[in-house]
Amino acid sequence: MESLLVTYRLQSASEEAQARAEALALEQTVELPRELVQNAFVRTHIMGRVEALEPDPAGGIRARIRYPAQTIAGNPAQLMNVLFGNCSLQPDVELVDVELPESVRSLFAGPQHGIAGIRARLQVEKRPLTCTALKPMGLGPEELAGLCELFAEAGIDLIKDDHGLADHPFCPFAERIHRCQEAVERAAARTGRRSWYVPNLIGRPEELEGQIARARELGIEAVLVAPMLIGLPVFESLVRRFPELVFLAHPAMAGSGRMAPEVLLGRIFRLMGADAVIFPHAGGRFAYSEATCAEITQRLRSPWPPVRSAFPVPAGGLRWEKLADALQFYGPDTIFLMGGALYEAGPRLKERSRAFVEQIHRLAKEGVGVHAGSL
Amino acid sequence: MESLLVTYRLQSASEEAQARAEALALEQTVELPRELVQNAFVRTHIMGRVEALEPDPAGGIRARIRYPAQTIAGNPAQLMNVLFGNCSLQPDVELVDVELPESVRSLFAGPQHGIAGIRARLQVEKRPLTCTALKPMGLGPEELAGLCELFAEAGIDLIKDDHGLADHPFCPFAERIHRCQEAVERAAARTGRRSWYVPNLIGRPEELEGQIARARELGIEAVLVAPMLIGLPVFESLVRRFPELVFLAHPAMAGSGRMAPEVLLGRIFRLMGADAVIFPHAGGRFAYSEATCAEITQRLRSPWPPVRSAFPVPAGGLRWEKLADALQFYGPDTIFLMGGALYEAGPRLKERSRAFVEQIHRLAKEGVGVHAGSL
Repeated sequence: MESLLVTYRLQSASEEAQARAEALALEQTVELPRELVQNAFVRTHIMGRVEALEPDPAGGIRARIRYPAQTIAGNPAQLMNVLFGNCSLQPDVELVDVELPESVRSLFAGPQHGIAGIRARLQVEKRPLTCTALKPMGLGPEELAGLCELFAEAGIDLIKDDHGLADHPFCPFAERIHRCQEAVERAAARTGRRSWYVPNLIGRPEELEGQIARARELGIEAVLVAPMLIGLPVFESLVRRFPELVFLAHPAMAGSGRMAPEVLLGRIFRLMGADAVIFPHAGGRFAYSEATCAEITQRLRSPWPPVRSAFPVPAGGLRWEKLADALQFYGPDTIFLMGGALYEAGPRLKERSRAFVEQIHRLAKEGVGVHAGSL
Repeated sequence: MESLLVTYRLQSASEEAQARAEALALEQTVELPRELVQNAFVRTHIMGRVEALEPDPAGGIRARIRYPAQTIAGNPAQLMNVLFGNCSLQPDVELVDVELPESVRSLFAGPQHGIAGIRARLQVEKRPLTCTALKPMGLGPEELAGLCELFAEAGIDLIKDDHGLADHPFCPFAERIHRCQEAVERAAARTGRRSWYVPNLIGRPEELEGQIARARELGIEAVLVAPMLIGLPVFESLVRRFPELVFLAHPAMAGSGRMAPEVLLGRIFRLMGADAVIFPHAGGRFAYSEATCAEITQRLRSPWPPVRSAFPVPAGGLRWEKLADALQFYGPDTIFLMGGALYEAGPRLKERSRAFVEQIHRLAKEGVGVHAGSL
C-alpha cells in the first residue's frame, strides 16, 4: 500500500523514543491508544507506524513514521492534519522531512508553469530573473503605478505588490492593479521588453475570487499569494481553477514554528502549486542559514514527477554588493528579489534598478553560478 | 485614530531592544527602513509605532507596538499578516498579546451564538455541557453511527467527529453524516433528550461548500472545523455566510510555534466566529500549563463587545478521576470533551458514557465550580 514517510525530530531521551514515536504515530491517525483499536482494517490501513529511529546530530531523536496514503483523502487540509495537525500542539515535536510517493504527489495541483513555463512565457531562456516589490503600504494607486513604470523601464522582470497591499480604502485593489498593469504595458510599448506586474491577492475566498476576476480581465499573467494567510487549501484550489495564472507564493506566517522551512516552503508550497516561492535569503534580516536556503532551493527544483520544478526566490535583505555571491550560490534558475536595496537609492531609484538588471545580465553572461547545480 | 496594540516578546538584550522593536514595527507595516519613508500619510497613518518596552519576567523584552487599524483593511488574512506575517520568520519574535478596539472587533464575524446561544438551542440553562468524539479514522459510516447512537442515548450533549474524519472512500462524508444524524434523532425520539451530532468539515473551499450544503439539508445544527487547516479567512467567511450554524473550532495545526495559544485560540478564533474552542487541557498529552488554559478560557469568556462569549472546550486527555477538579477549575460555562477516557472502557463504553454525563450533572448540582468565575 502507498504511504507517506514523514520524519520528525523528538526531544526525547533514547530510552523513551520508541514509546514517544508510537504515541505520535497514533496521535496523527487514530487518536486512540493502540490497545483500544481492535478493528483490523484500521490497524492495517489507517494507523501510523514507526519505521525507524535514530539519534539526531542536532540533539534528540529522528523518528520516521509511515502513514497510509489513504488517510489524507486527497485533501490539502487533511494532508497537513496528518503531517502536523495535533502534534503542532506538542512542543517536543518538529516536522523535519516528508517523502510522498508519486501517486500522492499527483493528487495536488502542483505548479502549472514552473521554471520552464515562466521562462517560456517571459521569453527568457537561461539567465536569472529579476524581481522587486511595490511599497510601502499607504501609497495610493498612482504612486505605486509610477514606481511600477519606473521598474519596468529599468528592465525588471517581475514587479510584485508588497504582500501587505490589500484592498485598502486609500489604495483600492481594482484601481491599483488597473493602473499598475497599464504602467507595465506603457513601459513595454516603449522598451519592447515585457515585465509582469504581479498583484497581491489577499482575503476571504469570495474576495479572492473577485480579485482574480479583475486581474484576468486586465490580462495579468502572474499573481502573488501568501498561502498560510489565505489558507493552503484555498491556494491549491485557486491554482487548480485558474491554471493559466502564474502563482508566486509568499512565506508570510509560514515560519511560526516547528515545521522545517524546507518542508513547508520547499515541498508543500510546490506541491500545492507555487510556480515560484519567496523565502528569506541567508544573511538578511530573517536569520535563515545558508544550509536552509540550499535545502529549500533543492526541494523546489529537483525532479519530483509529476510536480514541475518551481523557481526559488531569495529575498528579504538581498544585498547589492553580494549579488555575485548570491548568483554563485543559487545558480541561474533563480528569481532574485531585491526591494530595500533598491529603494535605499532614493532619488536614484531608476539608475539603481537599471544597475541591478544589468549586473544580473552581466554576471549571467560571464557564467557566474552555472555550476551551482548541486543545489 | 483607532489602532491595534500588540505585544511581542523579543529575545533581545535591553540595549538593543528599542532598535529591534522599531525594526519589527516597520517590518509588519511598511517593510522599509524609516528613513526611506518620506510620505507623511504613510508615516502617520500606516507605520507601526513602538509604544512601550519592558523586561519580560520570563526573559527577553516585552515590546508593545501600535498599528493603525486601517492597515488591516477589515480582512482576516491581512489582520494575521500585520500581527504575525513576516515576523513569523524571525525566530526571536513571539506574539504574546493583542488588544483590538471595538471598531476593529466589529469588522469580523464573531460567534453568532456563543455561550448563551448554544445554551438556548440545547435548552441547558446552567450546567456544563458534555462532549465526545467519534473515532477512530478508518471506521465506516455504520460503525460511527452506532457509536453516535450509543453516546446520544447516554445523554452526551455534543457528539463530534474526530477532526481526522474527512471525505474518505472508506467513510464518505455524505453517508457518514446522514447515518450519524439519523442516529441522534433516533436516540432523541427514545430518550426525549436532544444531542447534537457535529460533523467535521475539511477541505478546499468548494468542498466545504458541498459539505455544509449536505449538513444543512439534514438539519444539522453544529459543525466542527480546524481554522488553521482550512484557513482562518475561510472559517470567518463560513461563519458569516451560514450564521444559523454553530461552529466548534479545533486547534489542529494551531500550535506550531511562536503565537501564544491564548491569542490564537482565545482571541483570534473567537473573533473569527468560533462559538466554542477546543484546546488541550493541562495535564493531558499536550503539555499546556494550567496558566495557559486559564488564559485561553478567560479570553474566550470575558466581555469583549460586540463579540459574543465562546465556550471553552478543554480536551486532549481529560481524565476521568479528575473531572471534579476540572469543573472546579473551569466552572460551569464549559464544554467538557472526553474521548479516550470513555473509549478505554471497551465493552462498557455505554455505562462509562452515562457515568460521565451523570457525574457532570451531579457535580453541577452540588455547585462545584460555581465560583471559578475568576477565569
